Amino acid sequence: MVFKLNNHLLSRIASSNGHGEDSPYFEGWKAYDSNPHHPMENPNGIIQMGLAENQLSFDLIQDWLKNNPKASICTPEGVNEFREIAIFQDYHGLPEFRNAVAKFMAKVRGNKVTFDPDRVVMNGGATGAHETIAFCLADPGEAFLVPTPYYPGFDRDLRWRTGVKLIPVDSESSNNFKVTREALENAYEMAKLDNIKVKGLLITNPSNPLGTMLDRETLRSIVRFINEKNIHLVCDEIYAATVFSQPEFISIAEIVQEDIECNLNLVHIVYSLSKDMGFPGLRVGIIYSYNDAVVSCARKMSSFGLVSSQTQYMIASMLSDDEFVGKFIRESKTRMAARHRVFTDGLAQASIKCLETSNAGLFLWMDLRGLLKEKTFEDEMALWRVIIHEVKLNVSPGCSFHCTEPGWFPGLHRQHG
Amino acid sequence: MVFKLNNHLLSRIASSNGHGEDSPYFEGWKAYDSNPHHPMENPNGIIQMGLAENQLSFDLIQDWLKNNPKASICTPEGVNEFREIAIFQDYHGLPEFRNAVAKFMAKVRGNKVTFDPDRVVMNGGATGAHETIAFCLADPGEAFLVPTPYYPGFDRDLRWRTGVKLIPVDSESSNNFKVTREALENAYEMAKLDNIKVKGLLITNPSNPLGTMLDRETLRSIVRFINEKNIHLVCDEIYAATVFSQPEFISIAEIVQEDIECNLNLVHIVYSLSKDMGFPGLRVGIIYSYNDAVVSCARKMSSFGLVSSQTQYMIASMLSDDEFVGKFIRESKTRMAARHRVFTDGLAQASIKCLETSNAGLFLWMDLRGLLKEKTFEDEMALWRVIIHEVKLNVSPGCSFHCTEPGWFPGLHRQHG
Repeated sequence: MVFKLNNHLLSRIASSNGHGEDSPYFEGWKAYDSNPHHPMENPNGIIQMGLAENQLSFDLIQDWLKNNPKASICTPEGVNEFREIAIFQDYHGLPEFRNAVAKFMAKVRGNKVTFDPDRVVMNGGATGAHETIAFCLADPGEAFLVPTPYYPGFDRDLRWRTGVKLIPVDSESSNNFKVTREALENAYEMAKLDNIKVKGLLITNPSNPLGTMLDRETLRSIVRFINEKNIHLVCDEIYAATVFSQPEFISIAEIVQEDIECNLNLVHIVYSLSKDMGFPGLRVGIIYSYNDAVVSCARKMSSFGLVSSQTQYMIASMLSDDEFVGKFIRESKTRMAARHRVFTDGLAQASIKCLETSNAGLFLWMDLRGLLKEKTFEDEMALWRVIIHEVKLNVSPGCSFHCTEPGWFPGLHRQHG
Repeated sequence: MVFKLNNHLLSRIASSNGHGEDSPYFEGWKAYDSNPHHPMENPNGIIQMGLAENQLSFDLIQDWLKNNPKASICTPEGVNEFREIAIFQDYHGLPEFRNAVAKFMAKVRGNKVTFDPDRVVMNGGATGAHETIAFCLADPGEAFLVPTPYYPGFDRDLRWRTGVKLIPVDSESSNNFKVTREALENAYEMAKLDNIKVKGLLITNPSNPLGTMLDRETLRSIVRFINEKNIHLVCDEIYAATVFSQPEFISIAEIVQEDIECNLNLVHIVYSLSKDMGFPGLRVGIIYSYNDAVVSCARKMSSFGLVSSQTQYMIASMLSDDEFVGKFIRESKTRMAARHRVFTDGLAQASIKCLETSNAGLFLWMDLRGLLKEKTFEDEMALWRVIIHEVKLNVSPGCSFHCTEPGWFPGLHRQHG
């Protein structure tokens, strides 16, 4: 037996760099992985601030699990269910799971809207959900508009294997990075000039990395825009339960249920339990679409990334417990607000300002423009290298979030309990 | 708000029928879903014989779980691990999980071969694993050869979203449906004439639906073939532990470790715990590749279908228990052999013969040629409709497995305990 190198035998996807692993975003992660900080064992290691984790309220979850042994198919109390659950592979998911998720999605949105369990499609995390949506809505070469700054993982999730393009929509600090109709029109027209067919608009609300929310007027303007252009609207709302102070979160579900002209077939929500519950390892991604054909197609595609039935069963039990869920959401927000305050106060003492309109998410949008020699992305990258290699913090530069203004950095107030 | 139908706004994948849900294979499933048999509540319903489930030994698994409460992060004994596991999302997977899977894969193959845990890539079931392999190895329009009859789901798994083609390789009952060099050459040459680039050969060993295994000489001939053509070899070995009588299973891993001329970069194994352990709901799919570039690329792609960390943790504990695993594999084979005998004896009394070379899998390959008026696929479909609607058994017609000879049907001896 021998090894011969013939990578030309692989696919174009495998041979190209579409995954984006060499971007500063993933590079910072690798630096952290090779030298992780530990207060005792490796005090000079790199502190991870590049990963949005919500670990503040695991004590509540552990208490709940101890009190609910039947929620697991691996306890003496629950093991009789093991067989039926382990063999369950219907891509609709356990009915109890879909019911519980639909109820939880409503609760997280203040019960101002309802969700139909039959439109809940599961997927392998928000990562899998976004790719599935892209496969459903666009052909290779077609595009989604995405307001900047946006989560760097989108470049992998929506583009890599689908061949779909993402077109950044500009924003600026002078109006707190709002999504404006003018910027949307500009991006749309630019795509047209480049002969690129725009199939949709992808918004993240609350925003990662800004920690801001879209206000009602902006959401209505977005709905008008996508209807006029007859393109899809994909709303990533995976941080819905992390809004820790006023104003309250407004879901796209609330807007389309208003008396507004909207073709519901164009509207799709991506959700997940990775941020709101802090369970990224459990890979619970959700597509909620108002379009029957998309529900049907996404469900078929979910065969490639179903949620483990063991996990579906546990989540179904946990999220069906109204009292627990109410308490968890409230307590979690209180703790996040406190953590956010500690972090912003600390930065203020170091004379570092943050975007003041942030009231959600697990991050801050830090204004480090004053530390740049010149307002260029070269200088932003130079500052980033100092932060990662000398200050030993893994934060990402704003440019990796496609921010169009140099000098902004996301700071994650690590949400540890 | 209104609903307007504009499916032209969806992708070609979503608008086309590439999923194959209208094939007789899935049609039988739908007939079963709408009228499932129950011995008491619905004795005239359809009996499910279209799903390969291994449920014979769940008592052993339930006992193990009761005796190992620390294997679950949802028991009082294990809950302290909940936080670290729920937040774990490294696409390499838990090291304990990869170690345990590598060890289990060796054990299932009689410890005649070893597997390197660093080459174990997880995926959402074998379904996700196959799609990932196709994305890694072939561009849209390129093809894999697949000996017939083959699992109908391959048409979805490998083709649907990748744009890859599958080219059937003929086989015939006169030599027990063996994979011959001649048939491989014919399929390869036909593809060439059609200007289709063949990138690989996909074999299933043990075979679904034949229940047969590839012998050593056939495996060597296949290895020579793919090396001569310089194409990939993907070996689906998800039924490795279901070989219940002599001769013993020979993995491709054993052949490539022999003194044989083989470029290991061309060889990839797909594995899963859905059949050998009977856990399809847990979605544990595995790619084991000897090609570093494929390991690296498949691992990045696994972000779209990671195994739930809750499930990884439980599987790691269970498969690390040598004594349990040994007992489970032995006992499971004994029970399968007994069930197989009951089933073949029953069919023999009804004068139905089966392919005699079957000694693996959860199925039989029934010879119903004598029940056809004429040896055509039209008559096979007519017989299938009688079986499903009058006899009320959900079996699939051989043609849905791309069998080239009419009159063969897979019979699944439902593996219930």
